[in-house]
Amino acid sequence: MPLPRTATTFTPPVMAARRWLDGVTHPADRPLLNVSQAAPVDPPPAPLREAMARIVVDDPDAHLYGPVLGLPALREEVAKQWSAAYGGKITPAQVGITSGCNQAFAAAIAALCGEGDEVIIPVPYYFNHRMWMDMSGVKTVPLQAGDGMIPEAQVAAKLITPRTRAIALVSPNNPCGVEYPAETLRAFMALAREHKIALIVDETYRDFDSRSGAPHDLFADPNWADTLIHLYSFSKAYRLTGHRVGAVITSEQRMAEIEKFLDTVTICPNQIGQRAALWGMQHLQEWLAGERLEILDRRAAITDNFPKLGAQGWDLLGCGAYFAYLKHPFPISSAELAPLLVRDSGVLLLPGTMFMPDDVPGGDSQLRVAFANVDRDGIETLFDRLSNLRF
Amino acid sequence: MPLPRTATTFTPPVMAARRWLDGVTHPADRPLLNVSQAAPVDPPPAPLREAMARIVVDDPDAHLYGPVLGLPALREEVAKQWSAAYGGKITPAQVGITSGCNQAFAAAIAALCGEGDEVIIPVPYYFNHRMWMDMSGVKTVPLQAGDGMIPEAQVAAKLITPRTRAIALVSPNNPCGVEYPAETLRAFMALAREHKIALIVDETYRDFDSRSGAPHDLFADPNWADTLIHLYSFSKAYRLTGHRVGAVITSEQRMAEIEKFLDTVTICPNQIGQRAALWGMQHLQEWLAGERLEILDRRAAITDNFPKLGAQGWDLLGCGAYFAYLKHPFPISSAELAPLLVRDSGVLLLPGTMFMPDDVPGGDSQLRVAFANVDRDGIETLFDRLSNLRF
Repeated sequence: MPLPRTATTFTPPVMAARRWLDGVTHPADRPLLNVSQAAPVDPPPAPLREAMARIVVDDPDAHLYGPVLGLPALREEVAKQWSAAYGGKITPAQVGITSGCNQAFAAAIAALCGEGDEVIIPVPYYFNHRMWMDMSGVKTVPLQAGDGMIPEAQVAAKLITPRTRAIALVSPNNPCGVEYPAETLRAFMALAREHKIALIVDETYRDFDSRSGAPHDLFADPNWADTLIHLYSFSKAYRLTGHRVGAVITSEQRMAEIEKFLDTVTICPNQIGQRAALWGMQHLQEWLAGERLEILDRRAAITDNFPKLGAQGWDLLGCGAYFAYLKHPFPISSAELAPLLVRDSGVLLLPGTMFMPDDVPGGDSQLRVAFANVDRDGIETLFDRLSNLRF
Repeated sequence: MPLPRTATTFTPPVMAARRWLDGVTHPADRPLLNVSQAAPVDPPPAPLREAMARIVVDDPDAHLYGPVLGLPALREEVAKQWSAAYGGKITPAQVGITSGCNQAFAAAIAALCGEGDEVIIPVPYYFNHRMWMDMSGVKTVPLQAGDGMIPEAQVAAKLITPRTRAIALVSPNNPCGVEYPAETLRAFMALAREHKIALIVDETYRDFDSRSGAPHDLFADPNWADTLIHLYSFSKAYRLTGHRVGAVITSEQRMAEIEKFLDTVTICPNQIGQRAALWGMQHLQEWLAGERLEILDRRAAITDNFPKLGAQGWDLLGCGAYFAYLKHPFPISSAELAPLLVRDSGVLLLPGTMFMPDDVPGGDSQLRVAFANVDRDGIETLFDRLSNLRF
């Protein structure tokens, strides 16, 4: 007898971590530093909130069902801006709007895989990707990251079997923060195409990439749609986490399959969030550029402060977008260390063990710091607290 | 090799039907009567829209991630109002908020079933239920409706196998409109409990039930949570279709499983829609009572006008909530008839064949009329047009 789908996977890590806070009090001079979640903690800027309020009152269609694949004007805007940003040709029909980027991933896997199929993903991975594959009866094939936490296509090549349906990458990476080089993505695209499997590239954090210009040239390939499935989230750039709006970009043929999934699971993305995303894309580019600079400054604060930890035997395995990925020097598993950090140091972060299967060498000593909500002073405090740790 | 999940099911019927409109022009004196979709076509009342606008501007939390299982205040309000309405005890922890009622069904099935498991549903069925089961690798076991389109527990009993995980009912029913008697639901509850399977009852249309008081006494059973999974939608009552808010009510144990699915697929329901649903529950009960009376009047218009069709050999198989379910007398399949109706009669409705497997006896002659958006005059016009049909 098979287990029910949900019984094949684990409890959501973010919620498990939140329970470590239960019963712990934080002294007034050492408030909790929460670096566990990769989400803005402030609402969207006032002009966007005001635009949303006008839409709520004045636009009757913003309250009714809309097309399964999303608001046509938003699909057009994404197609236009993406075509320009990536130097390729993306049509509105190749863009689908989803109820958040997690749903975009779920829909892509449903359109690619059946029971017992396989998808290759680098470890550490984004845990919700693993959870969806578990619940879909899809085998997660872990790909060990190479130097600098960058996965290598020639290593992935050895993991491909007749059941492999896709390779899924996240760049800039969650949890490692590393930005995959354009040539890495190009090599994976070539590998996927050679084996007639899909390459999923989740670029949720692309608006905070430190590189100027396009982070890769995959869309410049006129035949990109035969292989590439690109995923995006409007949550981070425009602070729309609570509105659940993401996107998937792929061939029209795959989009027709994705449409079946989205229709059945949610009917359509919510209308206010979609209109907010469109307004943001059309009016907040300058504001977003400033947000990016602030995140890049926080990233610099991580590398500026890291020597305090380096002196204690820590390693900085990756740093970028919203994340620093650390290796601690203690003879204790990160799964045990993380709850102790809440109590003893007033720091909430997620252990690397939440981002990988149980048997990954080295994973026990890894920790993810989601630093986007902590300013320079906070980052200095964080490193002071961590550098005082002894076990 | 298994097919990808989405390849195991069909194209969403509502979208397929919309394509029948392509290239058809409707004379000015015979505009299209669209009775295909079960959704309000007007936005929520102005006070609710204004409340939403204030929330958008003034409540920062309305833009951020919230709990996976929904806004605590909304879960509490549902628990309170449902406990009172059904004469039972439902706790906030037994209520989960979802991104629409389709997602509530999807989450329930994921928490109950694995590959190859079976769920019994009456035919005709709600097509998105069938699509989700197809995509989940769950076998849909069709239960032929009995007299008056009411399913019978003793017939369902014969369909139960060791792989059966649930029976799923919709009352008031989509597509038939019939309100299942309390004793029918009680018999299904007893059957499900006897076999240690779940009973899913989708009450999306309960606010338009013609009966006063509770439509069933399942929640009055102190042990209801061992068997019952209740589903609800805020879309119809408060005209929030575009905001995607539904609910699932079940045991805390099953809710923990459902939480894994919801976290992975959408992270949380969108925050504005949840707050709108809460405001509606707290402020629009009198308004909703008026909406119900209007729908009941339209239902009466169906039965008042039906004799015109009865004289032509049609049958009225079911009528209630948003739907009339008709049997036509022509020697042509409803699947062929429906597109012709668009062209020849200016009527868009869905054929019964969209609500059942291919091999159901009698299905070929059935048609669903979703009448909620058509007033008395429109219903009279609809029946005039249909009564002029000859084949």
